[in-house]
Amino acid sequence: MGTGDYNGADTDRIVISVDAMGGDAGPAAVVSGIAQSAAKNPDLAFLLHGPIEQLKQLVERRRALTGRVEFCDAQEVVSMQDKPAQILRRGKHTSMWSTIEAVRDGKATVAVSCGNTGALMALSMIRLNRLEGVSRPALAILWPSRNPHGFNVMLDAGADIRADSRDLLQFAMMGASYARNGLGLAHPRVGLLNVGTEQHKGNAELKAAYALIDSFSSKVNFDFVGFVEGGDIPGDKCDVIVTDGFTGNVAIKTGEGTAQLIGDLLREAFRFTPLSRLASLLSLTSFRRLQKRIDPRRVNGGVFLGLTGTVVKSHGSADATGVSAAVKLAFQLSKSGFSEKLAARVSTVAALAQDSSAFPLHQNLPNGERGADIPKAQGVQS
Amino acid sequence: MGTGDYNGADTDRIVISVDAMGGDAGPAAVVSGIAQSAAKNPDLAFLLHGPIEQLKQLVERRRALTGRVEFCDAQEVVSMQDKPAQILRRGKHTSMWSTIEAVRDGKATVAVSCGNTGALMALSMIRLNRLEGVSRPALAILWPSRNPHGFNVMLDAGADIRADSRDLLQFAMMGASYARNGLGLAHPRVGLLNVGTEQHKGNAELKAAYALIDSFSSKVNFDFVGFVEGGDIPGDKCDVIVTDGFTGNVAIKTGEGTAQLIGDLLREAFRFTPLSRLASLLSLTSFRRLQKRIDPRRVNGGVFLGLTGTVVKSHGSADATGVSAAVKLAFQLSKSGFSEKLAARVSTVAALAQDSSAFPLHQNLPNGERGADIPKAQGVQS
Repeated sequence: MGTGDYNGADTDRIVISVDAMGGDAGPAAVVSGIAQSAAKNPDLAFLLHGPIEQLKQLVERRRALTGRVEFCDAQEVVSMQDKPAQILRRGKHTSMWSTIEAVRDGKATVAVSCGNTGALMALSMIRLNRLEGVSRPALAILWPSRNPHGFNVMLDAGADIRADSRDLLQFAMMGASYARNGLGLAHPRVGLLNVGTEQHKGNAELKAAYALIDSFSSKVNFDFVGFVEGGDIPGDKCDVIVTDGFTGNVAIKTGEGTAQLIGDLLREAFRFTPLSRLASLLSLTSFRRLQKRIDPRRVNGGVFLGLTGTVVKSHGSADATGVSAAVKLAFQLSKSGFSEKLAARVSTVAALAQDSSAFPLHQNLPNGERGADIPKAQGVQS
Repeated sequence: MGTGDYNGADTDRIVISVDAMGGDAGPAAVVSGIAQSAAKNPDLAFLLHGPIEQLKQLVERRRALTGRVEFCDAQEVVSMQDKPAQILRRGKHTSMWSTIEAVRDGKATVAVSCGNTGALMALSMIRLNRLEGVSRPALAILWPSRNPHGFNVMLDAGADIRADSRDLLQFAMMGASYARNGLGLAHPRVGLLNVGTEQHKGNAELKAAYALIDSFSSKVNFDFVGFVEGGDIPGDKCDVIVTDGFTGNVAIKTGEGTAQLIGDLLREAFRFTPLSRLASLLSLTSFRRLQKRIDPRRVNGGVFLGLTGTVVKSHGSADATGVSAAVKLAFQLSKSGFSEKLAARVSTVAALAQDSSAFPLHQNLPNGERGADIPKAQGVQS
């Protein structure tokens, strides 16, 4: 491990643990991405995980990376087809395992990977532990929106298909913390996803979550705007949208698929006649301006929240630009001390909850949605 | 009631019961829409519900409607703010009530309204009764897709936030019937919405639904493609996407909001410079071609399925084009004898289910998602 000229540890540089393997575009795209980041930001250094000979060759070609990379040899790769359970059993020598392990060992506070989401989540959950008081970590994503900063935070985007009212309260807190530290919003507005904005809508679990979040919002420094609808995920009514991982996962995939369909139909429409082909040439800059605004590569930094250490999931198809965006987000979160702030916030609420009669016990809620195979939440009492 | 020159009942015309009130664009847009339809289709006639003086004035101006409209006087209007429960108690004199009542009385087999969705659903459910064997009617919508016919059917889009495995089986059957009769697909492909395509994904209810639909698909004349994801709603992997009303509602609103955001950003991008403004002029026809393909007004015919009579919910903001599209769908469904076919299909499966050991009892499923306030499903045994 290591190269002679790496001096990340000797400086005030922030070290990001980066999985070089597992993305569709291969390690060359990852190395190109971290080189872009390194060129822009002198305060960055990297722990780069993967087959060391291959990585060394790629890094040597990038002048921006001189003295900024420490290599961590890992000869195996998690593929997109690997099941999370397989990786937990036999994945010790994969680059993804090594990437997470560096965070566990305190060599970095944030990890970045473009690999298999399920495996990354499983490894993060098992190797990193949850923040004290957090029962369900969540995947938070950024979604293009009408807000001035251009994006909203939505969680859970699919880390876990279930969430009870307490989990949803924690998602609200974690999402708000992320918006503060990742997007720089001092006082984020949080909405709870439902099929309508009226208070009588939704199932019992959602109504309980409404009451919980409402009662805690003043104590945890965010505005609770109440129930919001699917249309508010790209809207400007709130900055953070809270939902369970099943609904969140379906919603963003529907939005993503619809956006891709529109893009393809647009291209088709412009190919139709010679005149429209001319128009499309003239429109190139307009399209590029739009693309920059909604480019999924720039918003691909899904983040696993609620763990001792932060894991940024970059899109599997991420190219250099996508990797660089994920690294930028990782840098911001690491620099702001996000994990520590989030841990403090969760434990404050846990303390408040112990004293509060407003905090309903889970067993009083009708129709809890946990399956028998899911361990009972520790809740915020722990 | 009635005008002297109405002769819908004397001909082979198909009569559609139309609520003239309650849409954002007012009765003028509705009358303009049915006039468009009447001009194109000589086999159409209308029962038009609302304040009779106002409607007569509007209809008299449209030559295409001469002899094609019977008026049903209803002086009150359901507003978008009215709660469904209020309308059920005090809505007897509203145009929406009258519209549904005409179907109940057998004067028409299909109704069209642009009004308040919740009230329309409640009235339909209470006044029309469910088809024998159907425990949960569903709202089916059309969504732009990569399929050759341009649209997919998705249900439930929000009639009810809950659905157990039997409901999902019935949604599959109803959606497939709708695709056959409304879209003209002889052998529709049905997918069950989940967070991944692997069989081990999802909660227990979804896995039970998978087994149920799989075991019945060969007997009910559709292809079951298994689990699909949000991205398949606008995709070409299947024609009918089945999910519960909570997930379905959030998914389409997210897709709709994202599409609107892209449209607005596109317009903005083209307004940026003189050159891009020129480009946008040249692009007009391309945009119009695209708009025609994904125009929500053309796909706004949400349909309540599972009732004795079909109710087409047109978009609240529907203009004449939107109303005309909804009327066209209503005509197709009425002409194909959709309700009767669906009833026959449901009762066939009910008979099969009684004999079949593959049909698991609801009480054996872990963690049923019904709230205490929801009446127990009659199931397909009835």
